[in-house]
Formats: sequence, structure tokens, C-alpha cells
Amino acid sequence: MKAVVLRALGEPEVLRIEEAPDPQPERGEAVVRLRAAALNHRDVWIRTGRYAGITLPVILGSDGAGEVVETGADVDPAWRGRAVVIDPTFNWGDDERAQGPAFQILGLPGDGTYADLVRVPADALHDKPPHLSFEEAAAVPLASVTAYRALVTRGRIAAGETVVVTGIGGGVATCALLIGARLGAKVYVTSGSDAKLDTARRHGAAGGVSYHDPEWPKALVAQIGGRPDVVVDGAGGDTFNKALDLVTPGGRVVSYGATLGPVQNLEVRRIFWKQLNVLGSTMGTRRDFAAMLRLYADGLRPIVDTVLPLDQAAQAHRRMEEGRQFGKIVLRI
Amino acid sequence: MKAVVLRALGEPEVLRIEEAPDPQPERGEAVVRLRAAALNHRDVWIRTGRYAGITLPVILGSDGAGEVVETGADVDPAWRGRAVVIDPTFNWGDDERAQGPAFQILGLPGDGTYADLVRVPADALHDKPPHLSFEEAAAVPLASVTAYRALVTRGRIAAGETVVVTGIGGGVATCALLIGARLGAKVYVTSGSDAKLDTARRHGAAGGVSYHDPEWPKALVAQIGGRPDVVVDGAGGDTFNKALDLVTPGGRVVSYGATLGPVQNLEVRRIFWKQLNVLGSTMGTRRDFAAMLRLYADGLRPIVDTVLPLDQAAQAHRRMEEGRQFGKIVLRI
Repeated sequence: MKAVVLRALGEPEVLRIEEAPDPQPERGEAVVRLRAAALNHRDVWIRTGRYAGITLPVILGSDGAGEVVETGADVDPAWRGRAVVIDPTFNWGDDERAQGPAFQILGLPGDGTYADLVRVPADALHDKPPHLSFEEAAAVPLASVTAYRALVTRGRIAAGETVVVTGIGGGVATCALLIGARLGAKVYVTSGSDAKLDTARRHGAAGGVSYHDPEWPKALVAQIGGRPDVVVDGAGGDTFNKALDLVTPGGRVVSYGATLGPVQNLEVRRIFWKQLNVLGSTMGTRRDFAAMLRLYADGLRPIVDTVLPLDQAAQAHRRMEEGRQFGKIVLRI
Repeated sequence: MKAVVLRALGEPEVLRIEEAPDPQPERGEAVVRLRAAALNHRDVWIRTGRYAGITLPVILGSDGAGEVVETGADVDPAWRGRAVVIDPTFNWGDDERAQGPAFQILGLPGDGTYADLVRVPADALHDKPPHLSFEEAAAVPLASVTAYRALVTRGRIAAGETVVVTGIGGGVATCALLIGARLGAKVYVTSGSDAKLDTARRHGAAGGVSYHDPEWPKALVAQIGGRPDVVVDGAGGDTFNKALDLVTPGGRVVSYGATLGPVQNLEVRRIFWKQLNVLGSTMGTRRDFAAMLRLYADGLRPIVDTVLPLDQAAQAHRRMEEGRQFGKIVLRI
């Protein structure tokens, strides 16, 4: 098969397509002929060496959609020929509250979806929502399950509540906007780009502010006419402090990332005096994935920023690093 | 009446007993002849000017027990003569999740319990658990309701769970130890004093470590044989970071104070990757107070460190500032 094999860390150009051996399904596994894959920041962090437990060579890619072509022993052969989307998280463990030590994500250490074929546990297979193209289906998995768990399982958002999603444009934030709006929340967003704020409004955001304004929480309170019930944050750093300041007393700040790094001068007093709930969330369980996928099966569509052919994986990575995308960057295979 | 009236901020010696006018109950209020009061750190922060909204003169004191001597209009006169303990929080508001803007604590801005008499809303009156002395009853209110809300309402501890209480010896931490052990949790503690660790064990702690050991979370994991389900922390600062490190994945860190100040270099990644719940908690609702008091009515006893007469309020404050106490410092009136 053709695959983008990461053999050395470095610039996007290390991502070169080459011939690789076809994967064979083991017991309980299936092989999927991929029609599309999608990028996640995780792929960039691995490629640039900013991720724990990197082992090379590896085929990157957590998100994929395609058709089942082979099934191993103990797998229902009726899966063959079906159009599927892959749940990219394996071995969560028995505790719904947190992933266990055996937890893995497709695309490191196991080979991922930047390839013609991928081998996955059969219980990671889900029927592709028929109204979604393969490119759209590939845009769903990791970002949407992360957004779903953050908003619903952890944040327990309710219809009518006000939610702020920081840093709109990124995969998880964009899915959080879509899912929050779908579930009847009023979703406000922040971005460094006015164009992204406009795009967010077209995709259902009730409003938004530029985070280049150091007083953006005040601007958001004015726009909302009050304080939000929930803030969903993937930035960390000073944005995390601002989220604690912004959210209503008794409210929830759901944290799923820290692209800005650790928080300096965290005011603990704000957490206890306002009786806040700071809820960490990452990835999602099998149950989260199934519940998330039902929203798409019921008509939701992900936002695809760009579709590029697999042999342009380097260009796709470059676009992600530039941070200009709104929605998912997809590789057509 | 005699009262300790705070007329100027400063050293403990500003706390001098003097003659003050007797309070008169207004509609919906009662006057309690106090038999004992107890100190909280809040009193020290007010005296030294480290508290918001200080208005002088004021009679300090949030904790008190005594007998009802007068009742205002609309108050059941059957309260007169009854031995009571006072719920020191007023006007929480309609939202169980967080106190509203009208929320007040007895002892600022309203006059508190370092006095012969205090005027309180009648719905703050609760029958004193008969087996408790007035000194013990006065040791209960603010620290115990804060510990109860932190552990039970917010932390949702269950029998058999492992709880770590940081900084044992202080009022809230000590009550958290008692309440946690009473509810069937295995409670471990930290302290800077080996004597306090010993005392904690005598009061039901399953174990404890000195926080002077920079590796104290490791020492605690070794002692527990695993990671705790819940950490209850009133320290903030670096202890807060260590609590996030210590607690089990999916676990809860309940924060009720920050005597060490803000947190530097908070690792947000720890919060989301471990799927943690960081839960702020302060004081308690009417419901929290009633539920907490039932534990005492059912036989629990608070820990009284020292009893001093009211005219030695300055010495009592000095003892609190030295931090050598284990349990509550009580003023006999």
C-alpha cells in the first residue's frame, strides 16, 4: 500500500509517501481501505517531537473513514464492504471517569490513517453516517469525541445555557461550537481573527470577541448580557485565568488542552469563592464516541476546512501550523 | 453588654473588651446570650486588614453558642430560653451552587459573637446538640459547615474512599478529618508538625506525612498504597499543584482556601489528561449547615484546642497566628 511513513522528526517535508507492507488483521481486528484521513494537532506534535512515547517509524493519523476490506478471526464478516468511520481510541479501561494505563490513540504507537489501509480493533468500527461524504466522516472522530466529552459528559451542558468556546477555528473548538449549538446552548466564541468570528457566526455562534482585546472577558459579558454557565477551553495559560474570571459563580470551566502552556499566577481564591467546577477532559470513551456519532447520524455535519490528496500531507501540516484553518484539514486517499 | 469591639486594625492587642449597647431584635430576629464564641482565620484577616469590605467599629466573631433571650416580631417565642448554636451565614440566595451578592457572614459587617449578646436572623438558630458543651458547640459552625460542603456537597465522598486533607490542625482541616472519618472515608493528612500528625491519628486519621518533605505526595502514595480519590486543600500555592499530581485519575481536588496564595506554573495538562475535577467550595448553605449539624447531633464532637475567657481575645488571636493549634480556639463568655 501507499502510506505517509514518519521516519524522522522535523519539518513538514519529512512526511513523504512511500510503499509500505499491507497490514493483516489479527484476531478481533479488521482492515479498512481508507478513503479519507484528517489531521489533528497531535500529528504535528509527534512530527516535531513534542509528544511523549514517540517510536519511529510510524504512520501518523488518528482520523479515518473508508470501507472494511478484511476481517480477522472472531469478527463478524458482515462488516466487509461496509462504509465505516473509526473510533481512534483503544483500551480506555473499565473506569468511565478516566482512561487507564493501557489507553492508546490510533497513529502512535500503532500505525494510523495516513495510508491506503489501516488495521484496527473491530469494536472501533462504526457505520459511516450515510449523508456524510468520506471526507466529512474522516473529519469527525478525534475532535468531535473530545468536544462531546468536554461539553456533554463532563460539562453537562443543558439547552438554553450559555457556553463560551475559546480559540474557535481549531478542530475541537469548532466541533464544540457545532455540538453545543445542536444541543440548544447559546455558544459564544473567541478568536484572534475577525474572519473566524464571522465564520463561527455563520455556523451557529451567537456571538464572539477577539482575544487580542485584553479585556475580552468584559466584552463578552457585555455581548452576552451576563456571565456564561460554561467555558470550554483548550488554550490554558492566561486564557485559563480569564475563563475563571468570566464564568458565572457555580459554573463550569472545562479544560481539554493547553496550547498556551501552564498558568501563571492562578487565583485559587476565584475557584473557591465562586464555587467553580474546573473539569479536565481528554478524548472520550466508547460510550462518548457512540453518543457523539448519533448527533452526526441525526443530521449534523462537520466543518471541513481543506481537502488535499494524501501525497500533500506536508502541505496539510504546514496549513495546520499556520493556524489559519477553520474546521478540519482532510487528506483524500 | 461587654464586647470586644474592633476600633482600629493592627496587632492582637487592639482587641479590647469594653461596654457596648445591648442589641435589640428587629422583625424576624432573635438575641442570643452567648456562652462561648470561637475564632476563625477570617477574624485575624479582618483585624489585620487583609479582608474585603472592612467597616469599623465592628464586633468580630462568626461562631457562637448560647441561649435565646429575646425574640423579635414574627419569631416563635418558644425559642426563648433554648440553648442554640448559630448558623453564621446569611442571605446565601436562591442558587444552591453559589452564594449570591447579598451573602453575609456573621461578624462583618454585622456585629459578631465576641460579646455577651448577638442579634441574628431567627432562621440562623439551631438547637445545640445536647451532649456538646457550649464551648464545643461554639467550635462547630463556620469550620464544620465549610468542611461539610467541601467534603460532601462538593466532593461527594463515599464510604471507603481515600481522602487527603492538607494542613491538618486548622479549623476546617480538622473538621474535615472528623467528618470524613465519620462518613467512613480513610482520611490521610499533611502537616508541618509531627505532633499534629500524631494528634490527627488519635482523632481517626489513617496516616499522614510532613509537608516539609518536598516529595510528600510520593510518601503519601506509598503510605496509602495508591492514589487518593479526593484531596481537600485550603493551602493553594504549590500545595495545589501537588494535590493535582497526587490525586487519582478521574479524582476530585476540593479547594476551600489559599493561605499560600496563588499557584505558579499550574500544569493544566495534568487537569485534562487525568480528567480531574477541581471543585471550589466556600462556607455552606442552610441545607449544608443542617446536614452538618445532624452529624454532631448524632454523636460527633469537635476538637477544641484551647478555651480562654473573652477578655483574653488578644491572646487567642496570637495563638491562632502562631499556628500551633489543633482544633478550634474558643472564647468562654
